[in-house]
Amino acid sequence: MFLQNAWYVAAWNREVGRAPLARTILGESVVLYRKHDGTAVALEDRCCHRQLPLSMGVVIDDDLRCGYHGLRYAADGACIDVPGQSSIPAELRVRSFPVLERWNWIWIWMGDPVRADPGLIPNWWWCDHPQWRCSQPDMIHVKCHYQLIADNVLDGTHLAYVHSTTIGADSIAAAPPKTERKDHLVRVTRWIADRPPPPLYQLAGNFTGNVDRWANVEHAPPCYSVNFAGCVEAGKSNGKRVELVALSAPTPETLSTTHYFFAFSRAFAHDDPVVEDIFTRRFVDVFREDVAVLEAQQRMMTLKPGARQVNIAVDVASLAARRLLEGMIAAEQQRRDVPPTA
Amino acid sequence: MFLQNAWYVAAWNREVGRAPLARTILGESVVLYRKHDGTAVALEDRCCHRQLPLSMGVVIDDDLRCGYHGLRYAADGACIDVPGQSSIPAELRVRSFPVLERWNWIWIWMGDPVRADPGLIPNWWWCDHPQWRCSQPDMIHVKCHYQLIADNVLDGTHLAYVHSTTIGADSIAAAPPKTERKDHLVRVTRWIADRPPPPLYQLAGNFTGNVDRWANVEHAPPCYSVNFAGCVEAGKSNGKRVELVALSAPTPETLSTTHYFFAFSRAFAHDDPVVEDIFTRRFVDVFREDVAVLEAQQRMMTLKPGARQVNIAVDVASLAARRLLEGMIAAEQQRRDVPPTA
Amino acid sequence: MFLQNAWYVAAWNREVGRAPLARTILGESVVLYRKHDGTAVALEDRCCHRQLPLSMGVVIDDDLRCGYHGLRYAADGACIDVPGQSSIPAELRVRSFPVLERWNWIWIWMGDPVRADPGLIPNWWWCDHPQWRCSQPDMIHVKCHYQLIADNVLDGTHLAYVHSTTIGADSIAAAPPKTERKDHLVRVTRWIADRPPPPLYQLAGNFTGNVDRWANVEHAPPCYSVNFAGCVEAGKSNGKRVELVALSAPTPETLSTTHYFFAFSRAFAHDDPVVEDIFTRRFVDVFREDVAVLEAQQRMMTLKPGARQVNIAVDVASLAARRLLEGMIAAEQQRRDVPPTA
Repeated sequence: MFLQNAWYVAAWNREVGRAPLARTILGESVVLYRKHDGTAVALEDRCCHRQLPLSMGVVIDDDLRCGYHGLRYAADGACIDVPGQSSIPAELRVRSFPVLERWNWIWIWMGDPVRADPGLIPNWWWCDHPQWRCSQPDMIHVKCHYQLIADNVLDGTHLAYVHSTTIGADSIAAAPPKTERKDHLVRVTRWIADRPPPPLYQLAGNFTGNVDRWANVEHAPPCYSVNFAGCVEAGKSNGKRVELVALSAPTPETLSTTHYFFAFSRAFAHDDPVVEDIFTRRFVDVFREDVAVLEAQQRMMTLKPGARQVNIAVDVASLAARRLLEGMIAAEQQRRDVPPTA
Repeated sequence: MFLQNAWYVAAWNREVGRAPLARTILGESVVLYRKHDGTAVALEDRCCHRQLPLSMGVVIDDDLRCGYHGLRYAADGACIDVPGQSSIPAELRVRSFPVLERWNWIWIWMGDPVRADPGLIPNWWWCDHPQWRCSQPDMIHVKCHYQLIADNVLDGTHLAYVHSTTIGADSIAAAPPKTERKDHLVRVTRWIADRPPPPLYQLAGNFTGNVDRWANVEHAPPCYSVNFAGCVEAGKSNGKRVELVALSAPTPETLSTTHYFFAFSRAFAHDDPVVEDIFTRRFVDVFREDVAVLEAQQRMMTLKPGARQVNIAVDVASLAARRLLEGMIAAEQQRRDVPPTA
Repeated sequence: MFLQNAWYVAAWNREVGRAPLARTILGESVVLYRKHDGTAVALEDRCCHRQLPLSMGVVIDDDLRCGYHGLRYAADGACIDVPGQSSIPAELRVRSFPVLERWNWIWIWMGDPVRADPGLIPNWWWCDHPQWRCSQPDMIHVKCHYQLIADNVLDGTHLAYVHSTTIGADSIAAAPPKTERKDHLVRVTRWIADRPPPPLYQLAGNFTGNVDRWANVEHAPPCYSVNFAGCVEAGKSNGKRVELVALSAPTPETLSTTHYFFAFSRAFAHDDPVVEDIFTRRFVDVFREDVAVLEAQQRMMTLKPGARQVNIAVDVASLAARRLLEGMIAAEQQRRDVPPTA
């Protein structure tokens, strides 16, 4: 089950142009394109006549024409031309989804369009603020349930095992995090004082001794996580520092596959090529280490759907996030203000 | 559900020889081979002993010997030798299917053998008449329900969108077809007067001006379509012309895959290498444009089996064809003269 | 359904070391590794915390540490360390399976550990006796139900059809086997007097005339077969001979896939490179001829699960073996001393 009334990242803004882009979101086939004035449009990617994906068609002016029999759809989903036929019945239409462009992403609302409040898009101002340099790696398609990604982001201990050669350090497990839940937010904070920096931080910061390190995550359902991370010379709050914000917005494709959108913004060394390489390439490699784990988890879950799971101390945050989301989905289903979901 | 009591194209005659050929037809595993005198034989492709496909065996004289334990089957499906055993119980036999060779194809009857009337094979005399030159391209395996192919053949408007660079023209949608249904036949006729020829017709006919074009399809269930197509210099009924008959006999492999058999016969320019290339190669490319559409439709239908479909004017003929076929299948099932089908 | 209380070959001993090895056995995910002292360990390959395969982790001392959150499991399956947590609840554990190393294989017991009697491992002493030279080819993964392999081994007639160019001969089908069933054993014996040797025997034995040949199989459920095979100069019981024991222990991976373990031991020509090549390479090719048949059978069975099968005379032994195994599985299920199986 998905939360329908929420904004999800549908695509990087650079992915959508005049050529139609097919993407499955919450199990629904969606096609994205841009109108002449650049406005993004999202329609159901299935001609209501004979089901051809509209993404196999062509954009003409502000409309999308089906590649089979030429039915032409306006940006609101209404069919406005049927070759060989003068009158067009009202039922000839496809769903049109609210979309908004913000923080370099195109956001889509799969639920009830009247509830599509732009104010519900998270305020990720680090993505296009001049004092921050934002790396925008390509989305990674991950064969796992999207909630496994939230679990991963909310848990810091895995850095010591999954990312031991990049951003991990033995010191992490020894510094237990503090977890808070407030309203629709789960916050995990971790402070590691006076320890050696992990390999990628060392490379980025060129430290000569120990550092004080922080790793604070704020997660809001259904799938928005902000990871405030960095370190500073031990004991010198104004010392040399590595400081970044990692943004994560995994969008469910199906119940077992996810479009993993993420970005890294940093407040230092904008023009340092070594640091640029870390943020555009090596951090992506770190994410790929997670992907190997996430997909293996999903394979095991698919193999034995009811397998026993035991919780441990580090799960406090991810369990809180799951409960938040489950509550929101249950409330939405009860209100019946969304179509039944997969 | 399939219509069992009907002839289907099982193979091009050139495909079947002394080496067994495996092919699934209406969901049944079939093996084809030729006897010493050249007669084609079709048997169930599953040894009744331990299920090995008989197509993994060898043809010996007029029989087929299983490649596992050597059981030997005669052309009528009876097992006539069991190595290491003197008596052969009557239940040791596989199904044998009536086959007939006509119009360069081997036709098979999957239903009740006593109903296998050779007169029910369509009269496609253009295939081996000396005044017609018949191109016989290899069968295309298409991952779609066979009825989607009938829909495609019966609809002319898609030429303007799917085949715009080959046989399509904007003029098609503007010239609505006439659809007739009589007995077990659906006929669609379309006449486009005094318009430029489409690219492949121009290449074949070297016209210097507009043409009058016709595109008439006769479809008989379960899957036989004849497309009478061509054009002539505008207003000159005896002028230079391109004239062809496209024959289509898609055979269901399963409910979502099809062996698409087709041929093109022409009554002009038998020895022109440019025209020969159009008929043997470029028309096949046109069919491959259809295949891309057909397989995408099937993917969408598989993804969401009950998805809404709205009919439009151009569907008159294909809906009539579907009703005809449904009626025949229902009648056959009610008579219970066929085994239950997939 | 599988027989749980039985020893199965999990791996060649050379396959298991300090790096974890993942292998699915009877549908269960298992990980194998060796402790410091070389003892083999088999654990459930699924962390009980968040289901990551433990085979993605690392062996530390005698334990296995999960690659996600660092949970450390001892060889008995108990979790003995949870990073960031001081107390460890008893429910944090995975299954540990009894394993034993014998005849160059690692044997595993998937059922009730208290019933894991080492005396139940078959006595295949030819595998490491100095007077026998044992070839130990890599396991072959076969996409078929394991019982199809027992059928294959217990039946000699197929040699004439599947292996006609290697170990088959027309004389086989003409010499009917004798089948005996005693307690938990099915024995098939076949004696072929005074006939030409099959190609591989001729190559190994360089015979100048006919041979007397024997092919005797002893099969014990769930899946142990010993094939005593060979030939000697016709009429000379002390003459030149080819003598071998082929051991077969196919281990079910799932209900439709099998890890096919086998070995060949011979009592002649230990140091002859031609014979060595036959036993290490060409006999494996013979097994691959079987694999092609076995996988085709399985494909056909999967395609039409209830398809009719007729038994013939050569099935006496394999039917007896199937009845033996079915009886053992039924008894085990009735005793309820095993967990419900797939």
